[in-house]
Amino acid sequence: MGVIGAGNIGTSHARSLSREVAGAQVRWLYDADVARANALADEIGAHVAPTVEQLIASSDAVVIASPDALHAEQALICLDAQRPTLCEKPLAPTVSEATSVVDAEIDLGRRLISLGFMRRFDPGYVALKESLSSIGQPLIVHNVHRNEYAPYGLTTSGTLTNSAIHEIDINRWLLSDDYATVQVVAGKPGPRTPEGELDPILMLLTTRGGVIVEVEAFVNAAYGYEVRCEVVGSEGTVEMGDGSYLTRRAQRAVGHEVPELWLGRFEDAYRRQLQAWVDATRVGTTSGATAWDGLLATITANAAVTAITYGPQSIELPERPSLYR
Amino acid sequence: MGVIGAGNIGTSHARSLSREVAGAQVRWLYDADVARANALADEIGAHVAPTVEQLIASSDAVVIASPDALHAEQALICLDAQRPTLCEKPLAPTVSEATSVVDAEIDLGRRLISLGFMRRFDPGYVALKESLSSIGQPLIVHNVHRNEYAPYGLTTSGTLTNSAIHEIDINRWLLSDDYATVQVVAGKPGPRTPEGELDPILMLLTTRGGVIVEVEAFVNAAYGYEVRCEVVGSEGTVEMGDGSYLTRRAQRAVGHEVPELWLGRFEDAYRRQLQAWVDATRVGTTSGATAWDGLLATITANAAVTAITYGPQSIELPERPSLYR
Amino acid sequence: MGVIGAGNIGTSHARSLSREVAGAQVRWLYDADVARANALADEIGAHVAPTVEQLIASSDAVVIASPDALHAEQALICLDAQRPTLCEKPLAPTVSEATSVVDAEIDLGRRLISLGFMRRFDPGYVALKESLSSIGQPLIVHNVHRNEYAPYGLTTSGTLTNSAIHEIDINRWLLSDDYATVQVVAGKPGPRTPEGELDPILMLLTTRGGVIVEVEAFVNAAYGYEVRCEVVGSEGTVEMGDGSYLTRRAQRAVGHEVPELWLGRFEDAYRRQLQAWVDATRVGTTSGATAWDGLLATITANAAVTAITYGPQSIELPERPSLYR
Amino acid sequence: MGVIGAGNIGTSHARSLSREVAGAQVRWLYDADVARANALADEIGAHVAPTVEQLIASSDAVVIASPDALHAEQALICLDAQRPTLCEKPLAPTVSEATSVVDAEIDLGRRLISLGFMRRFDPGYVALKESLSSIGQPLIVHNVHRNEYAPYGLTTSGTLTNSAIHEIDINRWLLSDDYATVQVVAGKPGPRTPEGELDPILMLLTTRGGVIVEVEAFVNAAYGYEVRCEVVGSEGTVEMGDGSYLTRRAQRAVGHEVPELWLGRFEDAYRRQLQAWVDATRVGTTSGATAWDGLLATITANAAVTAITYGPQSIELPERPSLYR
Repeated sequence: MGVIGAGNIGTSHARSLSREVAGAQVRWLYDADVARANALADEIGAHVAPTVEQLIASSDAVVIASPDALHAEQALICLDAQRPTLCEKPLAPTVSEATSVVDAEIDLGRRLISLGFMRRFDPGYVALKESLSSIGQPLIVHNVHRNEYAPYGLTTSGTLTNSAIHEIDINRWLLSDDYATVQVVAGKPGPRTPEGELDPILMLLTTRGGVIVEVEAFVNAAYGYEVRCEVVGSEGTVEMGDGSYLTRRAQRAVGHEVPELWLGRFEDAYRRQLQAWVDATRVGTTSGATAWDGLLATITANAAVTAITYGPQSIELPERPSLYR
Repeated sequence: MGVIGAGNIGTSHARSLSREVAGAQVRWLYDADVARANALADEIGAHVAPTVEQLIASSDAVVIASPDALHAEQALICLDAQRPTLCEKPLAPTVSEATSVVDAEIDLGRRLISLGFMRRFDPGYVALKESLSSIGQPLIVHNVHRNEYAPYGLTTSGTLTNSAIHEIDINRWLLSDDYATVQVVAGKPGPRTPEGELDPILMLLTTRGGVIVEVEAFVNAAYGYEVRCEVVGSEGTVEMGDGSYLTRRAQRAVGHEVPELWLGRFEDAYRRQLQAWVDATRVGTTSGATAWDGLLATITANAAVTAITYGPQSIELPERPSLYR
Repeated sequence: MGVIGAGNIGTSHARSLSREVAGAQVRWLYDADVARANALADEIGAHVAPTVEQLIASSDAVVIASPDALHAEQALICLDAQRPTLCEKPLAPTVSEATSVVDAEIDLGRRLISLGFMRRFDPGYVALKESLSSIGQPLIVHNVHRNEYAPYGLTTSGTLTNSAIHEIDINRWLLSDDYATVQVVAGKPGPRTPEGELDPILMLLTTRGGVIVEVEAFVNAAYGYEVRCEVVGSEGTVEMGDGSYLTRRAQRAVGHEVPELWLGRFEDAYRRQLQAWVDATRVGTTSGATAWDGLLATITANAAVTAITYGPQSIELPERPSLYR
Repeated sequence: MGVIGAGNIGTSHARSLSREVAGAQVRWLYDADVARANALADEIGAHVAPTVEQLIASSDAVVIASPDALHAEQALICLDAQRPTLCEKPLAPTVSEATSVVDAEIDLGRRLISLGFMRRFDPGYVALKESLSSIGQPLIVHNVHRNEYAPYGLTTSGTLTNSAIHEIDINRWLLSDDYATVQVVAGKPGPRTPEGELDPILMLLTTRGGVIVEVEAFVNAAYGYEVRCEVVGSEGTVEMGDGSYLTRRAQRAVGHEVPELWLGRFEDAYRRQLQAWVDATRVGTTSGATAWDGLLATITANAAVTAITYGPQSIELPERPSLYR
């Protein structure tokens, strides 16, 4: 296998594939920063490829963990080489780029791209989805997505296209439904909100089936990283929290710790995603989110960005190609 | 003291005043249903007054627990007789009636009306308000208000003016802030939603200070009665739940019971409200929500009803009279 | 009414009777510290009695909140004067004194003493007892009783006779069963345990019906005050915790506050106990724990003290007099 | 690798090694029930060995998941063949057999046996151990170990040697301390307790360092499978529960599900244990519990069995051989 990108997430994938996943071996790495690539290659016993093209040519399967703007371009090369590919989310920042990947896959007539919406493999979300049958018909979903602090340079539209895009995908998956409208309500800026940005924000989506999906996205929440999701059904509700094993009692307080970063919360989801992808790859199928899911997420996130300035948007979706049915 | 109304809530108030509140004695009762009034009077050792007017004339202080439509009219009689009065919420269903009570009180030059927004005395909400100083600046408030089933004959506008009006008041009180705008998002009707009604609904308010106040109002939630409130601040959040003492483990589940009705949740709030009101009355002051608070709640609830049909509304408030500063 | 003792608990009772309890008026106070008695009397509008005897003679009903060593002696005077009496726990530190009160009451042929085991009125314990029917047959009870720090001068035997005596009483009440044996296991002393004392300790009781009642008593638990109780039944368990309404998220932790002192946890139990006692007194009956319950608690606590030095003890109980059946 | 035993736990190990663990391949299986061995071999692409000896001879590393009574005998063969071995707990039912394995390993002069106390790899227990530094000095540990129903044919001594042996090991590991004494308190038999057996039971251990380790072992707890552990320290406590992600609200209850069986709780611990063992094996070391740990657990469990009949036992431990320091 080859891994493109030796930053945080690429390093995490390369290590996990080497140490925790059955049936996989990372042979090739690429990173524009060659020193970084070399260090990781030494650590896990892999080689550094001189170019992305050579990495793809030499690998049986490829993980794309490069900067967002390069995802689509590299995915297209992978498709051209007919390599099973796990591409980090988003598929592309723009709808036209995301569409080009979907179109290429349709031309190929075969699904090769899996998209790294790892929450679909998180034990919490999986249990949530399984439990939906016990609460009647889903009517409203309340989501909370909070970061202790915003990643460097994150803008309001980045919050939607890079962070809240997880909620956009996971609620589609939970509900097996597509979106119809989106609006964004700007929250009151707190003392940590950068000048000119909106944080927290409330994103309100409705699905074609009429369900309200509400998302609080708050990237400077100060107290830690947290993701919650409550599905309100006609007979009851199910809420997913953080699954902590511990309750600590100290200094007149009882409770548990909240992680600083999302890796602390979704570590196991990443491993399961890789294992499922390796398993699928070995039998010639794909797992998890598809390029189509990636395209719809990009369309929705971009509509949400538009909604900041222009108010509620209806979401126009292309017809679902037969390849993705 | 006299109590007008011997229905659920009037009976509860009369019993509580007799049995749990220091310094109060219920001498007079009135109810249009004389048999019901007699039964309650026998139980607590009170007399039945032949008319509301006579009850008010004979009592040192009055509790109004009659049907909503009569609140304003009876409050005016109490003001005329200069009786300290605890009036059940709402002050009135219409803005003009509520305004007439406020105007009468201003003319009198003295506050005599306390409004029965009992949540202001609930240990949960009181603790929530006290803890706000520890989470920085409040930015968003998420509220959940669910009934197991709707009271007989409740309509969508009734959900707002009769049930969600509690959230309208309590969030103003929590934030010490007034509302600027309101919109209502109709949820997907569930199998229990009556034809032609909307349930659940999402009400989105913004305050003059810029805080988003979100309220899920769901009157056919099927699983029980529940009220939750999470204040999201710039440094952390505080969430109020149901304060159960018990955790039960049985039949492959661990958790606690949810009450069927709001009395199970707010029993102590009602008692504390009555005690505070009796204490205030004895020293010539008032306690809890004022007629002004009642007027603003009615204005806001009516704007929310309008918003169902006509979309987001800005909320126009009269200037605050000096009597209520 | 009269209240003997104007220390912490006497002051709390006097204030509560004046301000929160229907049907009661505190007319007389006594405290060996006259200045303290005067200050409280001024605050609540009562008079100071020159002696305990005069207070008892002048009052219709009496609350004894004096130091433990005086309880029995003052209870005997109250019985002599045939006054309904609420006596703070313990009934007496020694079995012989406690027996003398029971004997006097038997001679009188009428129950007049209520014992201040206020946990019997705590909403948490009441709910726990009510829920026992849902978990089959009780088999084991796990109790935790932790203080942030020991009251001044508390010794190991004091932990049993003064603090863990609450568990001794409340488990009898929960199970409607008497004790058969007791042993005490000395825990490892922590850095806060005073030289020569044992803390924490584990007390293991068995009831005549065969139930194990385990009590962790830890008076220097450092983190705050906490009481927990889990009844393990043949079909499930119910656990009573602290009933907090709030969940706070801040500084990478989620949870709620623990109080420093027991009043923060049992405030409502004290009020309910007083109201029940006033109600019972007005109709000529008693409420809550009896002198008999007080005697059995003292016998058991003293057996536990013996068990520290001499190992497991069987508990010999006198036959239950017909007055207490 | 070879796996001996194709029952529940052997099947689980073989599948996990094949599907979820990096760097391992199961080549050989053995089970006395050849049909069962063949079915599993087909499923995971392995071969069936005709005898245990041949399996061991052909494999680079061996997993022993046979009936308890065969563990020691097979471990000795593995040692003889110098194969890294992961042996399911217990090392042996009797102290003499367990000692023979330890002696053989000492003779060999090399640790080759890892013992399958998988809780040492459970994220809950690992987090618990890591958090101990935040609560001062550990003083008491409360453990709860409940099964919905007893495995077929389990006796009271089996509860100690087969089920509570997990607590015996994990508390040693948590505290890095050895046991000094043990006593067993027989609980009241419930309606599900088989004639002649004791259930629930309370096991009370003290460590050489003076810590009390209390274990409630209840194998017919009826409501589900649950393991809890609260370490009480001089500055606070940490409690490990079940780490559920979900909160469900339905039918007047809020809470989450409890699993029926231990696999539902410790699935991830099994996988992590296997991965750690494979990783250690590949670099020529061992991971997790050693044969020495297995011997001490067997000694302690057997002392507990004796304590049922003969009362509190002191636990005599052999001196720790230098191989296990």
